[in-house]
Amino acid sequence: MVPTIEWKDGIVRMLDQTKLPLEVTFFDCSTYQEVATGIKELIIRGAPAIGVAAAMGVALGAQKVETDDFAEFYSQVEKICAHIGSTRPTAVNLFWAIERMKQFILSNKEKPVAVIKKALIDESNKVLKEDIEANKAMGRHGSQFIKNGNTILTHCNAGALATGGYGTALGVIRAAKEEGKDINVFADETRPVLQGARLTAWELMEDDIPVTLITDNMAGWFMKKGMIDLCIVGADRIARNGDTANKIGTYSVAVLAHRHGIPFYVAAPVSTIDFNIPSGDSIPIEERNPMEVTHVFGKTQIAPKGVKVANPAFDVTPAELITAIITEKGAFKPGEISRLAVVSSKQKQEVRSQKSEENLPPLEKGD
Amino acid sequence: MVPTIEWKDGIVRMLDQTKLPLEVTFFDCSTYQEVATGIKELIIRGAPAIGVAAAMGVALGAQKVETDDFAEFYSQVEKICAHIGSTRPTAVNLFWAIERMKQFILSNKEKPVAVIKKALIDESNKVLKEDIEANKAMGRHGSQFIKNGNTILTHCNAGALATGGYGTALGVIRAAKEEGKDINVFADETRPVLQGARLTAWELMEDDIPVTLITDNMAGWFMKKGMIDLCIVGADRIARNGDTANKIGTYSVAVLAHRHGIPFYVAAPVSTIDFNIPSGDSIPIEERNPMEVTHVFGKTQIAPKGVKVANPAFDVTPAELITAIITEKGAFKPGEISRLAVVSSKQKQEVRSQKSEENLPPLEKGD
Repeated sequence: MVPTIEWKDGIVRMLDQTKLPLEVTFFDCSTYQEVATGIKELIIRGAPAIGVAAAMGVALGAQKVETDDFAEFYSQVEKICAHIGSTRPTAVNLFWAIERMKQFILSNKEKPVAVIKKALIDESNKVLKEDIEANKAMGRHGSQFIKNGNTILTHCNAGALATGGYGTALGVIRAAKEEGKDINVFADETRPVLQGARLTAWELMEDDIPVTLITDNMAGWFMKKGMIDLCIVGADRIARNGDTANKIGTYSVAVLAHRHGIPFYVAAPVSTIDFNIPSGDSIPIEERNPMEVTHVFGKTQIAPKGVKVANPAFDVTPAELITAIITEKGAFKPGEISRLAVVSSKQKQEVRSQKSEENLPPLEKGD
Repeated sequence: MVPTIEWKDGIVRMLDQTKLPLEVTFFDCSTYQEVATGIKELIIRGAPAIGVAAAMGVALGAQKVETDDFAEFYSQVEKICAHIGSTRPTAVNLFWAIERMKQFILSNKEKPVAVIKKALIDESNKVLKEDIEANKAMGRHGSQFIKNGNTILTHCNAGALATGGYGTALGVIRAAKEEGKDINVFADETRPVLQGARLTAWELMEDDIPVTLITDNMAGWFMKKGMIDLCIVGADRIARNGDTANKIGTYSVAVLAHRHGIPFYVAAPVSTIDFNIPSGDSIPIEERNPMEVTHVFGKTQIAPKGVKVANPAFDVTPAELITAIITEKGAFKPGEISRLAVVSSKQKQEVRSQKSEENLPPLEKGD
């Protein structure tokens, strides 16, 4: 499969997801401002992929800072970080990646700026590589919840396209498929930007995983008909108590799953957990351009001119509706993820000390 | 406002709803086959409007039957009825209107065929007129549930465009507005055919009723945020126990409303109640063309070529999730509507005897 994002000849190349599935084209960024545009305009999207793009954007911007003075260099990088950080407010991986890159610079402050600049590219590639590894670990931890013959509902795209590769929710589905399980997927089309119709359906078809495309408002009906065994979605930000912000419509899927006694799983890397906020009430919800609702692909008008529109890009699913959160560290009941905060701060230290993450405390699995 | 459907110079003229809101154009039918096409292709849609179209289609077809022999005439009309009846399986008003026209012919069998043919046009106009009157009565009975300052969520289009005029769900909203209540409406866009975005938003803007357009998957989130006070939708077929088939997505809205303690009302004429079926399990659900999901307006492709699609046009909301059913005879708890069967069979007699409908048994109101 085509990489979602990569370094290529000194530029950051993104697969242009706004054109999928009709065209496979690329958005090449030679400046950090272009990376920011790519994030803002959904050329790249999905919390983990946004994190990778932000890391690469910081590294790209840093290459063009012309100074040997560390303080001046860091000050310029902070401006780059602020610009990239202003693109999308909800996905916490954006801020996590920016913070990681800043901490990386600070932990190498004694080195020459030229060395740091080069190392930043390596570090951003490491963010990408770790993300893919995290996805595969999520797949291993999550596939236990998928039984042979199951039909899985997913919302939006939490696949290879939303990550460095492999996927979070779709990574779990891929892992189940790789284990030889016979599975079917129902993909919500996910209005307004249609990530389900355009991206999830495309990814699954590429991987020969049987997929049925439905409109968002059909999910409840298929649950009532007994056709859905479990739901798996990704996440844009998870609060300390397990409340989860994800693509608009996720909350409705969770409520419907709850009514029908269908398990509802969230798959996301630990980097998507925001341990600084106690609950979903503190997660900022991005309001996007009304044109996304009134025009399909920015061109086909489907509503009266001048109509008032609401367009929140995300909603928050309360922890009580989530069966388990599947991370690269294992699957947990939502109320248990705060224990990962130790891991997370440990990880931060490890970013600095480059130590292995193997010696983590054992964690219970979600049911 | 432009009439949804009317007789005009010997033809049946439909406002072409597939082109709204971008173009106000008409589909003129000079044959009953064209009327059937208009119904099948959603040029006219909405259960009550389909009923009116079917009645006019039967009358139109009957005009061209060249015989003075009643038996031959009736036999030809039955073929016309079968053709029109094969267009859409869920909306019961289609079959109700066809049956009414057949009964009308039978009750006038002693008259010359030429007289019956002319009278059929009058009868179809009567179906139209009665539908508008029923809508206005529904408005009076239903507006009690809307308080000053309320925000109402509606799904699909149950407005003037879905009926002879005025509307069922939107008729109730119009009545509240006419009573001087300050109200707001949230309109689900209603994928895949976008009746909410294209028709409901357009109707409400024409009437200066404040409307906010949202995608279907946002409704639950706005309920959670406390922004919706009540829901009102139309119906395509109501079973004797109150189970209600309506546009796909209605069931999800009802489940979400239930979770948030928000009243959920169905507004529909008695002609939409199918007293012959005990529950929603017996309602046939129309499966429509996958192109409706994969292409917007039949032209803008939004999904990978060849993707498997499910496209049920309706779902069934169980009676337990419905606060009240608002009819032209009053508002009832879903469990109480079976009492209207008496009225319904009485109405059938009255169609034959042209008696007044005033002497109905008193009926309790829903809460």
